[in-house]
Amino acid sequence: MQPKPLDEAELAALGVATITGIPDAVVYCDARGHIRFWNRGAERIFGYSAAEALGQSLDIIIPERLRKRHWNGYFNMMKTGKSRHDADEMLSVPATTRSGATISVQFSVAPLKDENGAIEGIISILRDETETYNELRRLRKIESQHM
Amino acid sequence: MQPKPLDEAELAALGVATITGIPDAVVYCDARGHIRFWNRGAERIFGYSAAEALGQSLDIIIPERLRKRHWNGYFNMMKTGKSRHDADEMLSVPATTRSGATISVQFSVAPLKDENGAIEGIISILRDETETYNELRRLRKIESQHM
Repeated sequence: MQPKPLDEAELAALGVATITGIPDAVVYCDARGHIRFWNRGAERIFGYSAAEALGQSLDIIIPERLRKRHWNGYFNMMKTGKSRHDADEMLSVPATTRSGATISVQFSVAPLKDENGAIEGIISILRDETETYNELRRLRKIESQHM
Repeated sequence: MQPKPLDEAELAALGVATITGIPDAVVYCDARGHIRFWNRGAERIFGYSAAEALGQSLDIIIPERLRKRHWNGYFNMMKTGKSRHDADEMLSVPATTRSGATISVQFSVAPLKDENGAIEGIISILRDETETYNELRRLRKIESQHM
């Protein structure tokens, strides 16, 4: 027998516990691309405190050469609700930390919609995968030298 | 100037949109280890529909040989609020899908607490990293043959 499904309040509590408690970076940007939510995972991965990040453009973590491409994709998703990528796809990109280091992040996105279904902003969950990225690059170099 | 922080209702809406809309698997298990939330990402990655997964033990996706270790860690975290691992650590483990395939998942965890701070269950965000896992294994084999 199935237990009863979570009610609205339980689902809300679960959602809040997830975005505030999970070690992944959870970042929410509004229609203009300004940061409105920045959890502890985002503080740890990118080095900016929530107080520093809130209200800033997401440009604070986007390398300059990638900004145009990022915002084209961002505003396209704001307009259409759809990413240019497969909705289930994890995307990997370089990102810049507060200290100026370049890291590699793997991220997924979801829209936040208002009660009429209009998109208010975009949520992202990001993981630092710099180690894996560097290890793959190191190994592929070895492969290319020997194959 | 900073925009005003999200209020309680906005934070709840953001949390719900995240756990229901994100392509990552989001899974919540109660104190007994029974599945109480299973999003579309979990349906896609593990092959079980929410209707099939809800109420089941998480054993449906844990390979038999890893179950003892999993539940030791699980009930320890239920009791102490802490994982045996660094709280910020992403963990990688094999998992079993509905079709019987073994995949590799990278996951993070967070506790869900009641208003008194007691832990009610554990939330996890999981990504399928089978491709990366297999690619690293293939490349390390090449490395071991040539170094």
